[in-house]
Amino acid sequence: MNSDIIIKNHIDLIENRIMSFVPEVSPEYSVIEEAMKYSLESGGKRVRPVLALEFCRILGGDVEKMLPFAIAVEFIHTYSLIHDDLPCMDNDDFRRGKPASHKKYGEANALLAGDALLTHAFSCIASADLSSKQMIDAVRELSAYAGSNGMIGGQIIDLEGENKSLDLNSLFLMDKLKTSALITSACVLGCIGADKYEYIPSAVKFAENLGIAFQIIDDVLDFLEGEHNSDIISGKSTYVSLLGLEEARRQASAYTQKALDALEEIDGDTSVLKHFASLLLNRQS
Amino acid sequence: MNSDIIIKNHIDLIENRIMSFVPEVSPEYSVIEEAMKYSLESGGKRVRPVLALEFCRILGGDVEKMLPFAIAVEFIHTYSLIHDDLPCMDNDDFRRGKPASHKKYGEANALLAGDALLTHAFSCIASADLSSKQMIDAVRELSAYAGSNGMIGGQIIDLEGENKSLDLNSLFLMDKLKTSALITSACVLGCIGADKYEYIPSAVKFAENLGIAFQIIDDVLDFLEGEHNSDIISGKSTYVSLLGLEEARRQASAYTQKALDALEEIDGDTSVLKHFASLLLNRQS
Repeated sequence: MNSDIIIKNHIDLIENRIMSFVPEVSPEYSVIEEAMKYSLESGGKRVRPVLALEFCRILGGDVEKMLPFAIAVEFIHTYSLIHDDLPCMDNDDFRRGKPASHKKYGEANALLAGDALLTHAFSCIASADLSSKQMIDAVRELSAYAGSNGMIGGQIIDLEGENKSLDLNSLFLMDKLKTSALITSACVLGCIGADKYEYIPSAVKFAENLGIAFQIIDDVLDFLEGEHNSDIISGKSTYVSLLGLEEARRQASAYTQKALDALEEIDGDTSVLKHFASLLLNRQS
Repeated sequence: MNSDIIIKNHIDLIENRIMSFVPEVSPEYSVIEEAMKYSLESGGKRVRPVLALEFCRILGGDVEKMLPFAIAVEFIHTYSLIHDDLPCMDNDDFRRGKPASHKKYGEANALLAGDALLTHAFSCIASADLSSKQMIDAVRELSAYAGSNGMIGGQIIDLEGENKSLDLNSLFLMDKLKTSALITSACVLGCIGADKYEYIPSAVKFAENLGIAFQIIDDVLDFLEGEHNSDIISGKSTYVSLLGLEEARRQASAYTQKALDALEEIDGDTSVLKHFASLLLNRQS
């Protein structure tokens, strides 16, 4: 099968099943279920769960059985977007062309929808048809990568960057935490789901570099999109503002290459991961 | 040992160890660690972790080993208070006589400190020196009780109650979710920590009734405190407003009695739990 078909199969599996992981609730508080689903269906690229499923697949794991791990990472990603868009954070009214959760449901419901997605990420993991050891290891890794020394730490640096300009080292640290951490958790959970713990170090190296490349490209695309981006309006430091457009692009390629090199350490067919990494590098949105 | 000493031992264990479960972070984003600790040390009654430890103790479990489960419940409780106090929720500037997290650290940091406590509740569970099965069962129970069909569902009903008056049934449902759910999770995690799953149904019955009693007393105390309470100022429905002061007190006693009756089903020395329940019923703050 070619790489695009395998990626599409992963995405189809995610899209077909993701809503089934949102708990049904009573009519008295149905807005929470509605708000969780609204943000989950808002058409992202599903980068993290695809990576989780693909790592599991190439390491011989059962993709269906570890799907809840992949969904858990997407729940965490989605909660982070809802909270990031709140007025006290980035104050973005739109997300992927649709009203942000807080514009659609009000701030309080958006806050709680984010909290619920974060909470139920761990319900997803605990629902997998895998060993208790695999599940609790996944909980430990996901909470570490999503926590105060992971994604949330990156968000703190991001907030502080609104009041002062960040240097390149701080920007790297921020993105290692804010973006790479969750991408890394996805790849690690793929290894755990396949019960191939020995490949976790290579998966981490791949994901950390891919995450930085991914974030540099995000900055490049935001710069090219221009005026509608709140980061540019607010004058925050980005790779483009610190390095210039061409050097930013060059570094994105260099980090992507480091990511690809890490895949050489894996005894399995990594061609889909390589293809996926190059799709991310060359994406236009 | 008498009951007060046993309860004090539990509280001492919690106070001595709770901060060690907050991850140390780099100076670049140390405010997240500081904000997490600020809210954790804000001197609550530690009702939930005490219940978790005591259930474990009377069922023959190792209280030291299951401490991380008890701490996890307190992390969830603390995050819920931080988020509840935010301007978009109850907009309370003070919590237990100290500035609320968002007044001390700003809204964005408070939001993230709550997110981090919620995230690391699950790190706590995964750090326990118990079997993988016990740990993942604890994750499953805690995320369910804290999630959209538990505590968060109760918060949604609470929000809707700001715009319309709730009837007694809605108030019961709200408190069953908003207050009882997390108290129940504490008792259930105590049973899991002791590896005595057969007592979970009795623990649930005890906790659900105790939670309702606890919330009624909260309303009574808030009413007696009077003008400083935001719920009373905003005219929200409470047990006192719907039942009157004396009937509210009578129902608190009745629910406490139902809770005590459930303890009869447990083959163990439940005298401390009974004493603790009566302390909660007769508390003055």
